[in-house]
Amino acid sequence: MKKIAVVLSGCGFLDGTEITEAVSLLIALNQAGAQVTCFAPDIELTVTNHINGNALTEKRSVLAESARIARGEVKALDKLDAKDFDAVAFPGGYGAAKNLSNWAEKGAKCDVNADVKRVILDFYNASKPIGACCIAPVLLAKVLGDKKVTVTIGEDPDTAAEIKKTGAQHEECPVDDYITDRETKVVTTPAYMYGNAKPNEVFAGIFGMVHELVEWA
Amino acid sequence: MKKIAVVLSGCGFLDGTEITEAVSLLIALNQAGAQVTCFAPDIELTVTNHINGNALTEKRSVLAESARIARGEVKALDKLDAKDFDAVAFPGGYGAAKNLSNWAEKGAKCDVNADVKRVILDFYNASKPIGACCIAPVLLAKVLGDKKVTVTIGEDPDTAAEIKKTGAQHEECPVDDYITDRETKVVTTPAYMYGNAKPNEVFAGIFGMVHELVEWA
Repeated sequence: MKKIAVVLSGCGFLDGTEITEAVSLLIALNQAGAQVTCFAPDIELTVTNHINGNALTEKRSVLAESARIARGEVKALDKLDAKDFDAVAFPGGYGAAKNLSNWAEKGAKCDVNADVKRVILDFYNASKPIGACCIAPVLLAKVLGDKKVTVTIGEDPDTAAEIKKTGAQHEECPVDDYITDRETKVVTTPAYMYGNAKPNEVFAGIFGMVHELVEWA
Repeated sequence: MKKIAVVLSGCGFLDGTEITEAVSLLIALNQAGAQVTCFAPDIELTVTNHINGNALTEKRSVLAESARIARGEVKALDKLDAKDFDAVAFPGGYGAAKNLSNWAEKGAKCDVNADVKRVILDFYNASKPIGACCIAPVLLAKVLGDKKVTVTIGEDPDTAAEIKKTGAQHEECPVDDYITDRETKVVTTPAYMYGNAKPNEVFAGIFGMVHELVEWA
């Protein structure tokens, strides 16, 4: 049974993990027979109201909010050791760009959370596959840009241009498909980078990505 | 295109909607070609920490938290009119037993939120199908008990006994299947009433329930 780590960043696309993407990942990984363990950094997020998009001053724990998706079964990211797993996957949501990094503010000049960076490098160096969807591929671009990793975030030209500044390459991709980089063992799918995507389209793209990830793992 | 209303009760299984169930519903409904609109009551919930299960004193808006699952597209439940939809579905989570009713505290003697009760009765009286999973079938038992509605919550004997006190009937059902009551047009699936269920098993049960619901709608 392949062991796959999933890295969450909260619960809700405006200040944490995109929920449909995370659940699609968990369903598809279990359909593929994988054993899944969820992780999240033990840091705070700043809440966004999901009805009107307003930024609030309220803080919540990324770990405790991620536990809502994982039904309590979430571990602190500093405990994630690549040698215990066959692959790692990052769902999207602004949490990837605001909690796991500050990409939302700084783009290609962002800082990536130290544990996220360590995890990406450890899986890469162990030749273990890494999956990411929606905006989360920017984390792989930033950390593996010097390896010329190829990722997709769909077809948004501004984000694609920013990704290229890291040294990474970008390929356009429809919502229900995925892009494979066989050199770096990175597989990515755009998911809700298409803001009007339907849940079943997002699921289809993630299902394909997961199939590739687990086959490689 | 069939129009289906989905009634949420927050975001997280301990104080709101069970997230995997809600997303499974949304994926399956879109796979079936339905047009989905999410609703939630504009009331407060009391937060439970999802890491340790501790009840907190913090309050959150059921509507705003539900918007995390629905990517902002959630309407107040008092706006849900059965004549605008072909069917309605209720995902589970303690929110159904703590926010949409007080079943968690009072069992068969519970009060059901006035809008939830109205919605269930309006769809029933219009002969439009109603779906529910996990603990949410207790809402249908309480409101439609005098119609001798048949529901499932899996195989938990205590909850099944409590359901029977409402006048409703209970049938056991495995996690990946569903129970149909053709008289009342009610279809239910146990989902995470099996606490150790895998996301793909929950998805399979909900996928079947949705197929039936949309075919009937």
